[in-house]
Amino acid sequence: MKILKYPDKEKWESILRRPVQDNSVLDISVREILSDVKEKGDDALRKYNLAFDGYKSSKLLVRAEEIMEAGKLVSPGLKEAIRIAMHNIESFHRSQAELPEKLETTEGVFCWRESRAIEKVGLYIPGGTAPLFSSVLMLAVPALIAGCEEIIICTPPGPDGKINPAILYSASVCGVTKIFKTGGAQAIAAMAYGTESVPAVNKIFGPGNQYVTRAKELVQLDGTAIDIPAGPSEVLLIADKSANPEFIAADLLSQAEHGSDSQVLLLSDSEKLIGDTTIAINNQLEKLPRKDIAGKALKNSMAILLNDINTCIQLSNLYAPEHLILAISNYKELAGSVKSAGSVFLGSYSCESAGDYASGTNHTLPTNGYARSYSGVSLDSYIKKISFQEISSEGLRNIGKYIEIMAEAEGLQAHKNAVSIRLKSMQDEAN
Amino acid sequence: MKILKYPDKEKWESILRRPVQDNSVLDISVREILSDVKEKGDDALRKYNLAFDGYKSSKLLVRAEEIMEAGKLVSPGLKEAIRIAMHNIESFHRSQAELPEKLETTEGVFCWRESRAIEKVGLYIPGGTAPLFSSVLMLAVPALIAGCEEIIICTPPGPDGKINPAILYSASVCGVTKIFKTGGAQAIAAMAYGTESVPAVNKIFGPGNQYVTRAKELVQLDGTAIDIPAGPSEVLLIADKSANPEFIAADLLSQAEHGSDSQVLLLSDSEKLIGDTTIAINNQLEKLPRKDIAGKALKNSMAILLNDINTCIQLSNLYAPEHLILAISNYKELAGSVKSAGSVFLGSYSCESAGDYASGTNHTLPTNGYARSYSGVSLDSYIKKISFQEISSEGLRNIGKYIEIMAEAEGLQAHKNAVSIRLKSMQDEAN
Repeated sequence: MKILKYPDKEKWESILRRPVQDNSVLDISVREILSDVKEKGDDALRKYNLAFDGYKSSKLLVRAEEIMEAGKLVSPGLKEAIRIAMHNIESFHRSQAELPEKLETTEGVFCWRESRAIEKVGLYIPGGTAPLFSSVLMLAVPALIAGCEEIIICTPPGPDGKINPAILYSASVCGVTKIFKTGGAQAIAAMAYGTESVPAVNKIFGPGNQYVTRAKELVQLDGTAIDIPAGPSEVLLIADKSANPEFIAADLLSQAEHGSDSQVLLLSDSEKLIGDTTIAINNQLEKLPRKDIAGKALKNSMAILLNDINTCIQLSNLYAPEHLILAISNYKELAGSVKSAGSVFLGSYSCESAGDYASGTNHTLPTNGYARSYSGVSLDSYIKKISFQEISSEGLRNIGKYIEIMAEAEGLQAHKNAVSIRLKSMQDEAN
Repeated sequence: MKILKYPDKEKWESILRRPVQDNSVLDISVREILSDVKEKGDDALRKYNLAFDGYKSSKLLVRAEEIMEAGKLVSPGLKEAIRIAMHNIESFHRSQAELPEKLETTEGVFCWRESRAIEKVGLYIPGGTAPLFSSVLMLAVPALIAGCEEIIICTPPGPDGKINPAILYSASVCGVTKIFKTGGAQAIAAMAYGTESVPAVNKIFGPGNQYVTRAKELVQLDGTAIDIPAGPSEVLLIADKSANPEFIAADLLSQAEHGSDSQVLLLSDSEKLIGDTTIAINNQLEKLPRKDIAGKALKNSMAILLNDINTCIQLSNLYAPEHLILAISNYKELAGSVKSAGSVFLGSYSCESAGDYASGTNHTLPTNGYARSYSGVSLDSYIKKISFQEISSEGLRNIGKYIEIMAEAEGLQAHKNAVSIRLKSMQDEAN
C-alpha cells in the first residue's frame, strides 16, 4: 500500500485517476460475439460454451431436476443464511415502493406518476472462482417485488455442465426457474437479441468481467437497457484515530480479494492509524486463501494522510467511490456532506460485507466514478414511472391560453389548435 | 393515414415495427466530431459553428447583456405563460422529492437511502425551426429543485450569433446563465469532455436531431450519463365512439407537425370514429403552417380498427408509445392496464400539448419503444439515491453468522474475516 502525505489539492485529480482501459481490442472480440449470437442464436451459444467453458452438451436450459438436486447440495446453514439475507433485502427493497400521489398543479389539472414493472428482465450471474449466488438474491428479489413478468438468469456452466448449487438454490427460492447455461458476452447477446431458447429481455442486470461489461454497454446502443455501466470494485475508507486498525484492515482486504484490479483507498487524519492499519493488513493478508489476488490489488492501493476528516470527505466526493466506509466517531454529523458514493457504511460495525450479503441494501453499485451520476440497483431499476394527467374542462380553461401562447411562440400551430379547438367547443356549448 | 381493420394478433409486431435506422454512416461523422472536440476544444467548436451554423464570431459564451436584451424582446403575454408553466412544472417535480426513511431490517441493522444532486448537468436545447424554450423549463426546473451545483446550456446560434430570446429568457428565469453558442454533436462532445470554455458535466439532457442523439449515446460509452436514448416523437391515441373527432384530429396533427418522421397511431373500436377523424384531419391539415411536415408524417401513420378498447390497450402496451392519449369514456377503469408508455393523457381535455408545455408533467419522454424500460425525465433524473447503513454491535451479532456462512460459500474469506474479527472483539470485550 502506497502512503501519501498531505498531497496538494491540485494534485488530487491525478492521484485519484483510475486506470483507463483501452476498449478498442476488446470491442472487436465483443462485437464479433454479439453479431454471431444475433445471427446464429443457440448454435453460437453452444459454440462458445465449448470454446470458453469446455461444456460440450447442446443443452442450454437448466432442467427442473437439476434445480431440485441443487437444493439437496446446499447445507441447512447456508439455506438459513440465504433465507435471512433474502428477508432483509426484501424488506429494504419493498420499502422503496411509492404509491401514486395526485397533485393538482392548477385547479382542474391533476398530475401524478404510477410505477409499472419492466416486463422482461435478464440477470447475468458470473461463475468462476467466486460463484456469486448473493448476486442472484440482490437482482432477483427486487424484480419479484416490482412484479416483472419474465425473469431469466444466464450463468456460465462448468465443463461438466454444472452450475454452482447455491446459485440454482437461490434462484429457485426467488421463484426464478428459467436459467440458461451460457456466460460471457454471448449470454448478454442472447438476452439482448433473443435466441431460439433464450427470450429477449427489456433490461439486463448483473456483474461480470470486462467482456460482459462491454457487451452490456454495446447492446445498450441497440436498445436494451442495462442496470449500470461497471468497472472494477472499489472501497474508500475514511478513518480517524478512534477506528480499530484490525477492523479497517479486514475491510480493505475484503475489497482487495475481489480481484487484482480492485481499487482500495484509505484516508485518515491520523498517521498512527495508517501505520497500525498497514501492519494489521500484512498480518491478516498472510492467512487469506486469495492472498495473491488481494496482494496484487494492494500494490495499486493508497493510504492518504490528510489534515482533517472534512478534507477526507472532500477527496472522497471527488473520487465518488462505489463503497464508502466512514469509520469515524462523528459519522452522524458528517454523513450529510457525502455527495457521491454508491453505498455508505457508518461506524465500526457496518462492514462492507454486511451490505454485500445480508443487511438489506443492494450490492450492485456504481463503480469507476459512475457514483457521480448513477444510483445503485434498487426497486427503481425494475420499474418505469409513467406520468399521468387528467385535465377537466375547467382545468383546460385555466391553463389553455398559456399553452396557446407558448405553442405559437415555438411555431407549433397544431399544438395550439389542439387547445383552441377545445376552448372553442366549450364556448359553443356555453352559448 | 393508412387504415387497418382487425389485424391478426400475430401480425401486430410487424405492423408496429418502427423504422430502423442504420447508424453506421452517422457514426463515422459523429465519432469524428467527438474526437475533434475532445482534442481541439473551443477551436473545434468554432470551426463547426462556422461550417454548420454560419456563425463566424469566436465568442461562445452568451454575454449577460444578451440575456438582458432577450428579456426585452419577449412579450409580456409569453412571459406570463412561461411563469405559469414554470410554476406547474416546479410543483409537480417538487412533489417527486423523497425524504429518507430509515428501515430496521433486523434488530440493530438500519438501512436507508438519501438523495444527492448530480453536481454538474448540461442541457442541450435545439434551435432551428422550432426553438424549444419549453425544453429549457422542462430540463432546468428539476435541476434547480435537485440542487445541481452547475447547470449549463448549449444551443446552436443563428448566423448572426443570436439565440432565440425566449430560450435565453427561460434560462434566465431558471437562473441558468452559463449558456454556450454551440449545437449538434459538437455541443454534446463539449459537455462530455469539456473544452476551455465549456465545463465537462456528469450528465447530459435534452432533445436533438439524429446527430445529437447519437453523440449522446456514444459519449455515454465514455462515462458521461445521459437522460434517455431518443428517437422520433410519437403519439398513440385510443378513442372510442364517445370521443370528439375534431379533438382527436387536432391531437394527432400536433404530433405530426413535430417532424416528417413523427409516429402517429390511432386505435379505435369504432369504424365511424376513424372515418370522421380522417375527415377532420384533412380539414385541419390544410390550415397548418407546417402542413408539409405534418402531411409527410401522416403518410406513415396508421389508424387501426380493433374489436374493443381492451385490445387497443394490449396493442399499445406492445408498442410502448412515448405519448398515450386515452380518449375513452371509461379511462378511469382502464388506465391501470397501461403497462408501457412515457406519459398518459386521460379524457377529452387532456391534450398532449398541455403536457408539452404547462400542466406540470415533463415532456422529455422515452420514444422508440424505450418506454418499455425507461421513465421520462423527472426529479429522479437529476439525483442519485445513495444507500446508507448503520449497524450496531447488536445488529452485527444478529446477522454476522449469516454473512460468515455466505462469504465462505462464495470463497471470499476476507469478507468473512471482516465480520469474524468484529464478533471476536465483542466477545473478548465481554469476557
